[in-house]
Amino acid sequence: MLTDIEIAQKASLKHIREVAEKLEIEEDDLDYYGKYKAKLSDELWNKIKDNKNGRLILVTAINPTPAGEGKTTTTVGLGEALALRNKKAVIALREPSLGPCFGVKGGASGGGYAQVVPMEDLNLHFTGDFHAITSANNLLAAILDNHIHQGNQLNIDTNQIVWKRCLDMNDRALRNIVVGLGRKVDGVVREDHFIITVASEIMAILCLADDMEDLKARLSRIIVAYTYDGKPVTAKELNAVGSMAALLKDAIKPNLIQTLENTPAIVHGGPFANIAHGCNSVRATQTALKLADIVVTEAGFGADLGAEKFFDIKCVSAGLKPDGVVLVATVRALKYNGGVEKKNLGQSDLAALKKGIVNLEKHIENLKNYNVPVVVTLNRFSTDTEEELQFVKEFCEERGCDFAISEVWEKGGEGGLALADKVIEMLETKKSNFTPLYPLSFSLKEKIETVAKRIYGADSVTYDPQAEKMLKKIEEMGYGEVPVCMAKNQYSLSDDPTKLGRPEGFSIHIREVYLSAGAGFVVAITGTVVTMPGLPLVPAAEQIDVDKDGFITGLF
Amino acid sequence: MLTDIEIAQKASLKHIREVAEKLEIEEDDLDYYGKYKAKLSDELWNKIKDNKNGRLILVTAINPTPAGEGKTTTTVGLGEALALRNKKAVIALREPSLGPCFGVKGGASGGGYAQVVPMEDLNLHFTGDFHAITSANNLLAAILDNHIHQGNQLNIDTNQIVWKRCLDMNDRALRNIVVGLGRKVDGVVREDHFIITVASEIMAILCLADDMEDLKARLSRIIVAYTYDGKPVTAKELNAVGSMAALLKDAIKPNLIQTLENTPAIVHGGPFANIAHGCNSVRATQTALKLADIVVTEAGFGADLGAEKFFDIKCVSAGLKPDGVVLVATVRALKYNGGVEKKNLGQSDLAALKKGIVNLEKHIENLKNYNVPVVVTLNRFSTDTEEELQFVKEFCEERGCDFAISEVWEKGGEGGLALADKVIEMLETKKSNFTPLYPLSFSLKEKIETVAKRIYGADSVTYDPQAEKMLKKIEEMGYGEVPVCMAKNQYSLSDDPTKLGRPEGFSIHIREVYLSAGAGFVVAITGTVVTMPGLPLVPAAEQIDVDKDGFITGLF
Repeated sequence: MLTDIEIAQKASLKHIREVAEKLEIEEDDLDYYGKYKAKLSDELWNKIKDNKNGRLILVTAINPTPAGEGKTTTTVGLGEALALRNKKAVIALREPSLGPCFGVKGGASGGGYAQVVPMEDLNLHFTGDFHAITSANNLLAAILDNHIHQGNQLNIDTNQIVWKRCLDMNDRALRNIVVGLGRKVDGVVREDHFIITVASEIMAILCLADDMEDLKARLSRIIVAYTYDGKPVTAKELNAVGSMAALLKDAIKPNLIQTLENTPAIVHGGPFANIAHGCNSVRATQTALKLADIVVTEAGFGADLGAEKFFDIKCVSAGLKPDGVVLVATVRALKYNGGVEKKNLGQSDLAALKKGIVNLEKHIENLKNYNVPVVVTLNRFSTDTEEELQFVKEFCEERGCDFAISEVWEKGGEGGLALADKVIEMLETKKSNFTPLYPLSFSLKEKIETVAKRIYGADSVTYDPQAEKMLKKIEEMGYGEVPVCMAKNQYSLSDDPTKLGRPEGFSIHIREVYLSAGAGFVVAITGTVVTMPGLPLVPAAEQIDVDKDGFITGLF
Repeated sequence: MLTDIEIAQKASLKHIREVAEKLEIEEDDLDYYGKYKAKLSDELWNKIKDNKNGRLILVTAINPTPAGEGKTTTTVGLGEALALRNKKAVIALREPSLGPCFGVKGGASGGGYAQVVPMEDLNLHFTGDFHAITSANNLLAAILDNHIHQGNQLNIDTNQIVWKRCLDMNDRALRNIVVGLGRKVDGVVREDHFIITVASEIMAILCLADDMEDLKARLSRIIVAYTYDGKPVTAKELNAVGSMAALLKDAIKPNLIQTLENTPAIVHGGPFANIAHGCNSVRATQTALKLADIVVTEAGFGADLGAEKFFDIKCVSAGLKPDGVVLVATVRALKYNGGVEKKNLGQSDLAALKKGIVNLEKHIENLKNYNVPVVVTLNRFSTDTEEELQFVKEFCEERGCDFAISEVWEKGGEGGLALADKVIEMLETKKSNFTPLYPLSFSLKEKIETVAKRIYGADSVTYDPQAEKMLKKIEEMGYGEVPVCMAKNQYSLSDDPTKLGRPEGFSIHIREVYLSAGAGFVVAITGTVVTMPGLPLVPAAEQIDVDKDGFITGLF
């Protein structure tokens, strides 16, 4: 059996000019990055902005398991299948983060015969967007530390610096550091922290900004520290906004690539859904909507993280109205949620499936909160039995969801036709009345508790005293009316990653809270979630190689 | 008067395809990065590698002063002038570093009417080469710390880790840090250091590697640390080589851009000459030599740093035979060396010029060590008097150098015709018998002392005990037969940046020594030179801005 990278490397890619032609994009509106990647110009947006919007489908999933669910794979395959049904389809994805490529996770470009390509480029530097974000983030940090070193006119309290440096790398040693050691000329000593680039507020800003003016306005509002008398200090006060924006001038342009079947894919922005808001850029989604009949997008990890933030942060912020949701599951992952060990998932086990399907049930219930129609799809594995598939189908239909089996991993677009037909039927027959989970007028605590109780299924929420104090301060500062961005592990609906299925009778603990005034949300960190991952005992990096002709192997 | 960026933004750029056509490069051998930048494919090298080499001219300068010398400006203008004389000319430059753009230095793409463009892209992210180097450098660091955290099978002594993290940023707070603080899951506590990306050994490796195989062999040899029993630990032993090479697979391809007059410029690699070896990539220079009649390249800062390393490291390592040198000076800079304050440099002052010209004299003497013919050129300023110009001309001719006045800053290629004619005459009439300064069989101390005495003019060299110990260790390890890469301030021939002119009776102090086994040289750090710059009181970053159409201002 071929690996994902082997399949991707055998693909017959079209020059990106030809892919753009399908969407009537002229060559002059493309900035090529090699032959198979392009950025879409600002001028293109001006040409298409008055077009009628296409329909918007979100692909989300049950909680991820080591068994794999195939959310990105389904997103890609559904787009290809819609194209086979003669729909003008555009896929709108997030860019993968470089750090995890070298850790456990591997690439994030779909799998099997439902991938976006060139997968090596996408998983490595792509068009440099994340590097631009890293640079802008660290320029602000350097300017901040330089300001203090040069006399600290703004009266910044070095114990109240909230801006962190970042790298697109899994590097636990940088989580907690002390900087500025040495002599007087080597800066001011203080505690500092690196986060992974996808968790940077600048990533969120890039993904939520409408255009360069909005980007700059948001950058201006970033709070980097507080003064000794407790007042916020912004990026604007450090005169850092213009330089940061200059570093981001190309990064805000969406990227166009293609699937293995040459369906257009706009891939742009990539905050993690467990520690950030988890959706591709507003600009990419809006561009796709102007170019396509149907846009298929995804949000990271399970629906408790990605979909919740897609609806309550991205759609609310950008005024998007999603038309439907595809909820991805697998029989194997549901059995894993029912307590079966990974090595035994190939064995038929209806009892475990019945036990684990409560995870799917909870996500179906959660999505109903948003008044958007839902199709559940099972990514079929060869070990799935007819009895198991039939059980899930009936379970979903009893709960008012459409259902389709997907075989896109094995068959590409052809394997997604059943799902595409259900999605087309849904768009033609069911009306979406998208409603966010909570009104922005709720207090921050009410918002956190609404997500924790109604989405995660918690009984209660507890707060670290510092977190409680910060919530109060944020409201006093006048930032109470923003959404909350929950940072939570992805494996469990609770804040304990070992509690699978549909945990009950638990409490969510809010460890830390901070205001992302530029992004326009408050981050609430739960449990033990970290904003800088580490590498495992044997990093995936050890398998990656490149030969003398630049041909890459071992990248998953 | 227009600023550099305003001139650059008014230029009528040709599509890079048309620039490549001048060198008979086919479109299929170009990987575009937008419309005005391209990477040159590996296949191109295979097509041209058996071509006859063109002639190679190095542009270098006297010690830099705040008055400005215009070395890159001269390099660009000379290339343009040679094109006006119907020579097939290619300019081979280093890529600017991002960090200093936001500090004091500003951009590094030439000036006035002798610039390479697009200057904003070149000075910001360009084609992402430096970001790739940063990623590869920091992946190795993350794998190293992870190895120790996961059990330290290789028995690495955390007090003998020599691999440092890097960022392309001026950020003094990161010079000396402590990493791995926090709980057990947050890694192992140790002292660490960030350097600027241009000082990374990976930058040197990229610039000295012939091809991907050589790159990988060099990456394998990188020494990251020593064990408790003093044995070196390499990147190869950490299984990090394939991943680093994959990150560098596009970065090793040279970049093609153009001058304001559409002359081709290959811009690739960019180690600083004060803390690294200061030359563009061997691959870029070799490619240019196969494509052009005459290649004009430069080496960083003054001839004591850049030219010495160009000859003794780059030419020796790559087997290059330079055909001539252009040594750049200005009347203003020579007067500054003669003790005139910056604000008074516009006043005629023959006495100060006579006093300061000893700096030029020493560089002329130094270049004669290499048996390569020299043309001295003065970048003319409107305040220069005929008497001053005449004095410098005679001074040079008395010392066996050709002389030409250059006005490329004001007039572009037209302003460089006199210099171009001298260079053409030199190539036609004078033979180069390039000889390195020292044989590789010298001991490391002999090599350091040869550079210090014969190039810098020192009487003696002193060593920190740790540095002395390391030199001994490196020779015991069998790495004695490599060149030395001196890290020294650029302003003075001595290791004290305040000693201008031609200092005498001084000693050079070697503070620190380390082996760059992958690059293939030993770095000797002198005086107080730092490998991570800081930002000034008012960083250049504060002036940079970008408007809603992506138009950048304030970048110098």
